[in-house]
Amino acid sequence: MEFSQVVRSRRMIRNYDPDRPVPDEVLARVLGNAVRAPSAGFSQGWDFVVLRSAEERQAFWDATTDPASPPDNWLRGIQNAPCLIVCCSDPGAYLDRYAEPDKGWTDRDTARWPVPYWDVDTGMAALLMLLTAVDEELAGLFFGVPAERVDQVREALGIPADRNLVGVVSLGYPAPDRKSPSLRRGRREVSKVAHAGRFGTPLELA
Amino acid sequence: MEFSQVVRSRRMIRNYDPDRPVPDEVLARVLGNAVRAPSAGFSQGWDFVVLRSAEERQAFWDATTDPASPPDNWLRGIQNAPCLIVCCSDPGAYLDRYAEPDKGWTDRDTARWPVPYWDVDTGMAALLMLLTAVDEELAGLFFGVPAERVDQVREALGIPADRNLVGVVSLGYPAPDRKSPSLRRGRREVSKVAHAGRFGTPLELA
Repeated sequence: MEFSQVVRSRRMIRNYDPDRPVPDEVLARVLGNAVRAPSAGFSQGWDFVVLRSAEERQAFWDATTDPASPPDNWLRGIQNAPCLIVCCSDPGAYLDRYAEPDKGWTDRDTARWPVPYWDVDTGMAALLMLLTAVDEELAGLFFGVPAERVDQVREALGIPADRNLVGVVSLGYPAPDRKSPSLRRGRREVSKVAHAGRFGTPLELA
Repeated sequence: MEFSQVVRSRRMIRNYDPDRPVPDEVLARVLGNAVRAPSAGFSQGWDFVVLRSAEERQAFWDATTDPASPPDNWLRGIQNAPCLIVCCSDPGAYLDRYAEPDKGWTDRDTARWPVPYWDVDTGMAALLMLLTAVDEELAGLFFGVPAERVDQVREALGIPADRNLVGVVSLGYPAPDRKSPSLRRGRREVSKVAHAGRFGTPLELA
């Protein structure tokens, strides 16, 4: 698909056909594009835990949801996803990389980092998964793990304590879903977010 | 261009033709795709300060570099870029959004956030700029502002103190450059970063 059409077509899909798994070759392309995300110092401090069997996925949902409260429509739709990819970032990989001689930040001080590029870069990898899903005519969603559930997910999936859980990409073939009510907020158009030369000066393009 | 070709072709370019500015219509497409990045709660807490005139760009370089030390090859190449886009994130937009009734996090406590989605989402917008540059046969680079220079850049460009500087996208038509020595590290292939069902279990794809 043309790049511009992929970008225009992408939106978060919150319901999936539970009976159509993600083919291996599609998953390979999704992950193959994810590892082409850029990363600071080519650190590539990311890991992706792929959950495909019913048992694997249930372990994730058990760790993130309360069995006492029945799933709402949102959750029922997402739980139909035949594939979940838990995207983890590895701050230590960046601290190690930047302690090497060509960078020389041997103190491994996170205060040197204006923003946590481990999380930013892993987010870029997740975006490439979502875009590849569109290119493959699949549907995807990126969602976060509630902070108070992160430890339970790490334990359920054997994720080391030094990894951040940046979010989860759910993948599958789309089923009818309700658009997010957040979309009613409207998109902030370029004229609202772009500044010319100085913050607050509108950018005017021919 | 085909989506998959854009992804495969993208790499960071560190030198530009200083005499070929970025046409308005190309810049419009770059920014138009950036605002299609996903964001938590559709918060869209991002701003992009576009520096195109020699004076605007010099103000940025003055704020980030030491006039006493002559620019190295890296810096000379990047300073040829006719367009710099300073990508800012706005944590307050997310805290405001999630304090609304449908989310209800009225305490505005950043501890609720497993990772700073304001920075992650703005990074996704920056990646869409880089990919769009490839699609338009331009070249781009994403680089961070050193933490100790962030305040000076905010002051030089009038960026409010509550914004994070996630990074800068430089854009232009490519000139010969040296590939980053970081690339010698090699890409971490899918087989190294993907796990099946549980962290540490190799993913095998047909």
